[in-house]
Order: sequence, then C-alpha cells, then structure tokens
Amino acid sequence: MTTTDSGVRNGVDTTTLFATLDAVKEAPAAAQFKFRARNHWIAGTHSRTTIHDFFGVGEERQHEKATFHDIDHPRVLVGNDNAPTPVEYVLHALAGCLTAGLANIAAARGIELYEVSSTVEGDIDLNGILGLDPEVRNGYQAIRVNFEVRGDAPPEKLAALVEQSRARSAVFDILTGSVPVTIGVTTE
Amino acid sequence: MTTTDSGVRNGVDTTTLFATLDAVKEAPAAAQFKFRARNHWIAGTHSRTTIHDFFGVGEERQHEKATFHDIDHPRVLVGNDNAPTPVEYVLHALAGCLTAGLANIAAARGIELYEVSSTVEGDIDLNGILGLDPEVRNGYQAIRVNFEVRGDAPPEKLAALVEQSRARSAVFDILTGSVPVTIGVTTE
Repeated sequence: MTTTDSGVRNGVDTTTLFATLDAVKEAPAAAQFKFRARNHWIAGTHSRTTIHDFFGVGEERQHEKATFHDIDHPRVLVGNDNAPTPVEYVLHALAGCLTAGLANIAAARGIELYEVSSTVEGDIDLNGILGLDPEVRNGYQAIRVNFEVRGDAPPEKLAALVEQSRARSAVFDILTGSVPVTIGVTTE
Repeated sequence: MTTTDSGVRNGVDTTTLFATLDAVKEAPAAAQFKFRARNHWIAGTHSRTTIHDFFGVGEERQHEKATFHDIDHPRVLVGNDNAPTPVEYVLHALAGCLTAGLANIAAARGIELYEVSSTVEGDIDLNGILGLDPEVRNGYQAIRVNFEVRGDAPPEKLAALVEQSRARSAVFDILTGSVPVTIGVTTE
C-alpha cells in the first residue's frame, strides 16, 4: 500500500491511520476487540438494541454516545413494521463495512473520492424459517452488492478499491465464512 | 407446534400467524423475498443506509416508513464515532432475529412472556482486517449470545423457546453458514 499524502483525504486522517497500523504492529494484542449489542424485547417481533460499550486496545471503552436500534417484522410477516427486519440490518452492515474500507484504502492510495453509493440485495425463501420446506435454508440464498464509485482515478483503480475493501472486510468474511455462535439461557 | 390460544399473545396475532403459514403452504412462491439496503458514503468511515423497499408475496412493497441508519468507526479505529460499527450491527441483527422468533414461538405454544433480554458479544482480532497477520480472519472468531427469559412456563420450556428460535433463525443461519456474495462496480 502506498500513499501520496500524509494528511486528511476523503475525511480519513491518513497520518493517524498509518500510526495506528504501526502501533498495532508493535503491540498486536491491542487489536483484540470485543463488540456487544444489548437487546430487550418490546412486544411481538419488535425489540430494541442498545450499542454502547466495547473492549479494545487493552481496555473497556464506550462509544461517545449510546445508540438505540429498533427491529421488527413488516405486517406481511405478522409484525407491526416499527423498524427494519433483522436481515435488512445484515445488508446495511455489509454496505457500511465495504464503504468504510473503500474510503480508507482510497485515502491510503492517494485517491480522492467524489461519491460512493451502493445497493445491497438479498434473496430469501421464507419457506425455510416458516418450517414449511426442510430443503430450504433459513438465511439468504444469495446477496448482491452494486457499487457506484466516482473519484479522481481511472475506472480500473476505482474498481480495485472495491476489490481490496472486499478482501479486508470483516462483514464480508462473516457472511461468506462461518462464525461459531454459542447461545446460553437464564430463566430466572 | 401446538397452540392453546387463537388470539393475541405476547403482542403476536397468532390467528394471523397461522393464517400466514396456511397461505404460504398453499402458495409457496409467496415466500420468495428480496430485501435491500441503499447506502451512501458521507466522509471517512461514516456512511448512511436507507431501508425502505423490498419484494415479497409476489410484489414490490415498502415499509410504512423509510428509515436511515448511520455507520462509522470509533476514534480508536480512525473514525469519528458518529454511529456504531458495521460489526456491531451484525450482533444487533442476530439479537433481534432470535428475539422475534422467540416471541412468535412462545405465542404459538401458548406461553406468556414477561421479559426477554439478550447480550450478544463478538470477538474480533483486527490484525486480520489491518492486513498485519494473514493467519487471522477478518471477521468474528466467535459470537456468544446470552438470553434472559421470564414467562409463565417452567425453565425447560422457556429454554426450549430459545432453541427453537435458533433452529429457525435467518440471521443465525447467515452467520454460522455461508452466503454467496457477489459485488459489482460502476465507475461513471
């Protein structure tokens, strides 16, 4: 990775970005993070998540402010449509992850971005989660991402930003790989 | 699945729930859905997603209102901490999916819920996405979910709700399985 710039580009402070990389090279344990979401049920398919605390760079930390995120099913899926569905938040996470990476990589490569937008679409057959067809998986069968990227570089260099972001994306890896998930229950 | 009730329980309209199941049994194609997230980059690692339209039950539909969801990195990860990270939204999606399923299953089984809360925590080693260690994956290495469930049923029946929700969860399947993701780019 090369840079032609040591200041702020695309809203990315590249000096801090490279200093962070150097710091983690010196102390790899700083890169161990734990992220958390705390959810409580409201009614029916409606619940609310608080995102605030996390662990990283060796200590417990907090986002500057706690944020609250509702989730529900639409009426056609027997919800009250108070908020997006869980599976839509998954697409949102993928878009945001690829876009953040793209901006960082562009800044590191000295490319100024003018505009980045993306649409993420996922196909799901609800015969799976409804338990009506054991051959159908519960989750997405396929996800398609379409980026529009404009910036001061030739098309192949702009497209290469997306490819490098994909190669370093946490959410892309989570969706295309497999994460061990354990679930515990307390009932009193 | 049995029910002792044909009305509203836990905020779930079980009459509509079972009618929906029957309707999909009659016309399985109605269960083909496409969900979408439309994201645009703001600056640095900060972007915003609009969630509004989706396809389901044979036609294009919209949520009753469009919603907007910001995403960013914290300062310790060279962002401006305007909003949660992409990987925190993944945990939120898992919590909301398991909780919605749990409420539906409890309603179908005639169990009244008093309170449901969950904490979801994911471990990630950023040596992966920072490109500093090729042996480290980009995504979560493990996710742990802890539910607290209180309701008018013995502990084993409350715990069984969580297990059945897991078995039918779209997001659990997406995270523990593997989804094919394709990415396209337009640069003009």
